[in-house]
Amino acid sequence: MNDVVGALAGAVGMSHVIHDAAAMVPYLTDWRGRYTGRAIAVVKPGNTRETADVVRICASARVPMVPQGGNTGLCGGATPLADGESVVISMARMNRIRAVDGANNALVAEAGCTLAAVQQAAEAASRLFPLSLASEGSCLVGGNISTNAGGVQVLRYGNMRELVLGVEVVLPDGRIWDGLRALRKDNTGYDLKQLFIGAEGTLGIVTAAALKLFPRPRSSATAWVAVPDPQAAVALLALLRDRCGERVNAFELVGRPALELVLRHIPAMRAPLAGAHDWHVLVEVADALDGAALDDMLERAIAGAIETGLAVDGAVASSLGQARALWSLRENISEAQKIEGVSIKHDISVPVSRIPEFLQRARAALTAMWPDVRIVAFGHIGDGNLHYNLSMPGAFDNAGFVARTGEVNRIVHDLVAALNGSISAEHGIGQLKRDENARYKSDVELDLMWTVKRALDPHGLMNPGKVV
Amino acid sequence: MNDVVGALAGAVGMSHVIHDAAAMVPYLTDWRGRYTGRAIAVVKPGNTRETADVVRICASARVPMVPQGGNTGLCGGATPLADGESVVISMARMNRIRAVDGANNALVAEAGCTLAAVQQAAEAASRLFPLSLASEGSCLVGGNISTNAGGVQVLRYGNMRELVLGVEVVLPDGRIWDGLRALRKDNTGYDLKQLFIGAEGTLGIVTAAALKLFPRPRSSATAWVAVPDPQAAVALLALLRDRCGERVNAFELVGRPALELVLRHIPAMRAPLAGAHDWHVLVEVADALDGAALDDMLERAIAGAIETGLAVDGAVASSLGQARALWSLRENISEAQKIEGVSIKHDISVPVSRIPEFLQRARAALTAMWPDVRIVAFGHIGDGNLHYNLSMPGAFDNAGFVARTGEVNRIVHDLVAALNGSISAEHGIGQLKRDENARYKSDVELDLMWTVKRALDPHGLMNPGKVV
Repeated sequence: MNDVVGALAGAVGMSHVIHDAAAMVPYLTDWRGRYTGRAIAVVKPGNTRETADVVRICASARVPMVPQGGNTGLCGGATPLADGESVVISMARMNRIRAVDGANNALVAEAGCTLAAVQQAAEAASRLFPLSLASEGSCLVGGNISTNAGGVQVLRYGNMRELVLGVEVVLPDGRIWDGLRALRKDNTGYDLKQLFIGAEGTLGIVTAAALKLFPRPRSSATAWVAVPDPQAAVALLALLRDRCGERVNAFELVGRPALELVLRHIPAMRAPLAGAHDWHVLVEVADALDGAALDDMLERAIAGAIETGLAVDGAVASSLGQARALWSLRENISEAQKIEGVSIKHDISVPVSRIPEFLQRARAALTAMWPDVRIVAFGHIGDGNLHYNLSMPGAFDNAGFVARTGEVNRIVHDLVAALNGSISAEHGIGQLKRDENARYKSDVELDLMWTVKRALDPHGLMNPGKVV
Repeated sequence: MNDVVGALAGAVGMSHVIHDAAAMVPYLTDWRGRYTGRAIAVVKPGNTRETADVVRICASARVPMVPQGGNTGLCGGATPLADGESVVISMARMNRIRAVDGANNALVAEAGCTLAAVQQAAEAASRLFPLSLASEGSCLVGGNISTNAGGVQVLRYGNMRELVLGVEVVLPDGRIWDGLRALRKDNTGYDLKQLFIGAEGTLGIVTAAALKLFPRPRSSATAWVAVPDPQAAVALLALLRDRCGERVNAFELVGRPALELVLRHIPAMRAPLAGAHDWHVLVEVADALDGAALDDMLERAIAGAIETGLAVDGAVASSLGQARALWSLRENISEAQKIEGVSIKHDISVPVSRIPEFLQRARAALTAMWPDVRIVAFGHIGDGNLHYNLSMPGAFDNAGFVARTGEVNRIVHDLVAALNGSISAEHGIGQLKRDENARYKSDVELDLMWTVKRALDPHGLMNPGKVV
């Protein structure tokens, strides 16, 4: 293996190959701390040519490769396996914005740009790059592409998959595919870029991408609404689309236990409404124009919802500070849950229309097994995507329950499958859900995935043990 | 071959297998009349199971298959080759809307539904399915999916590729892949549906799809604007996005020769503005809300454009009838050109910002070869997509020029390639552009396309001679 490390050093320079055990540590454990792997080395190419050289060296030596972005993934997709046989390829040095084309509403960013840097480059050109995530200051856009990242504005702008116009990829044999076309229309064959988006580095390494830009919103309004039940929340979304049209930006569900966790554990958080309510939604509407009078529009829509019983109470933020405060209630749920203790987490989606049925049937099945189970349900229900986290009362001492994760997953995921949903809506598969995914995919679909994998990576060297 | 025809009759019923030569005629020539092929038979399965049976029968006998929708394609993709060895599989009988889910903003349509039927099903649920094409009354949605159809609202809603949530596909060996998930977020592996969208039936047969629906627009405004040059048109698009934001629905360029053709050949057409102008744009803005005062907004934006020299003159339609009249000027260009005589057509795209450079350099190169050449340029420049059609003055007697199509293509397509554009923006590849496409794709990209093709269709039975 010293030969490989030497060759890698020749390709990228000695200072960009890490093989000292202590120095490798930050690259070998995933963000949640679930997985720790080992590696021959961590190598940091500085440009596409060097990435291709690195891949060619590894491929000839039949050394598996683990592409890594900001190492903020939630499923262990960028963490090497424990066998210690692979090389981690960190894209962090490829961090140039190569081009911004305002008239074409596109920019070209290298894989190692942080998502925040991409957002800032768009802003500097008076445009919006709409992907927005909790980790945007540290996650890398190559990782966002490889995991088809989602977040809070998918409702309006789509997932990362919809935001990519073209990609540059180093293939598993080290060839470079320049698919960096920044075109809105291109019907010259198979849409190869979609193979690499969301593939978690198992089919090649995305080194750069042409990304779509949008007009920046200049008006927005944010509201917190208490609703009687999830059925009303889904109906409220339809009502808001009727009253506010394409302006609806975000529509997030927050269950009472989720709100209570935040109020308990996060300093300076305040309940937006008087009284306790079982279900809330956080709504944001936005418009590219100034003075769009959205506060008033949202206010009237909510009043209409209260009249017809779709809402119980609601408050529109009267300042940007109030709007931020509403958003921080939503954004701090994960952190609050972490403080409370361990839990069994799910990231699922079903058709939006079936969210109420999912919540009702999942609760029934889980409480039949564990009458005291605490259900922390929240998330992007405008996309049919729920974060559905379970713990027992007094979660500090929750180890016994967490040991039964398999049983809990079975109940939740069987129901998701019955509703034609997804067991991983936005976090991906990685190591965490590979077996679970194989359980729920049809044989035909698994075979298609393997057919693609074998065709593009016949020696199985790209991020083995992930996705498929 | 009688064995195969007999087996097909057994699968779908005798009355749904056409093998009489005269009865097959409508299925063997493409819409433009460029290609006429031959076939063993035309078979019309009535459901997914029958389609799978048909494919299995053909696959075991190693008989090539040509999937066909409404036979309205522009590149011969649905026309069998002249060798007469294949079976045409017409999807026309699979014409059910399987489900409409308003709360999930999705419907499931079978491949044989006309695009108009899909639009109507959406409308019946107070939703919009935004794909809109000249042939929408007769094209089938399976063909729209297989060609990744575009049209006039791509600027706002995207191509067909962006409008599909899930597909059901019969694979080349007759297995059925049920990928009909109607989810906004699903990160459980490779996005297999994208392989079949835009593949023109070369990787399998799309039998049904889950499609996205949107709020219906309730307000709209349409304007015809004369601009000094294409550079101003691109700047006007940016200005409109600044002034009208996400409301900009369509932005179509019409060159003077294109307008003159329509005024000359189509009855009851009138020039919208006084005087003659070299370039015009047709603009539509729309909003899901009632009373959005878009006329006024558009009027002011155009006035601002005239003040700064981006526009010379403009008129906002004052009634729906006037708006329709403006649209029919745009929609009748192809028809008028057909009446005028033959021409050499191109369907190209470049980044929006490079449209002016494309037009200027293409004109320079073409007039250097043919000083009298008439350039009819029009189309979706908001997407960077131009229909760029060439003829000589007195196009009725144009055969000599058309005989030089290869030379003309070389000039236009070389320039498109130099600008990192596409030689087929929305019409696809089919038979018409297969060789031309192979000329401009990189070796790496062609190899990737062949790798996918061989992996999914190892015996090369799905629509051979098309795309790759």
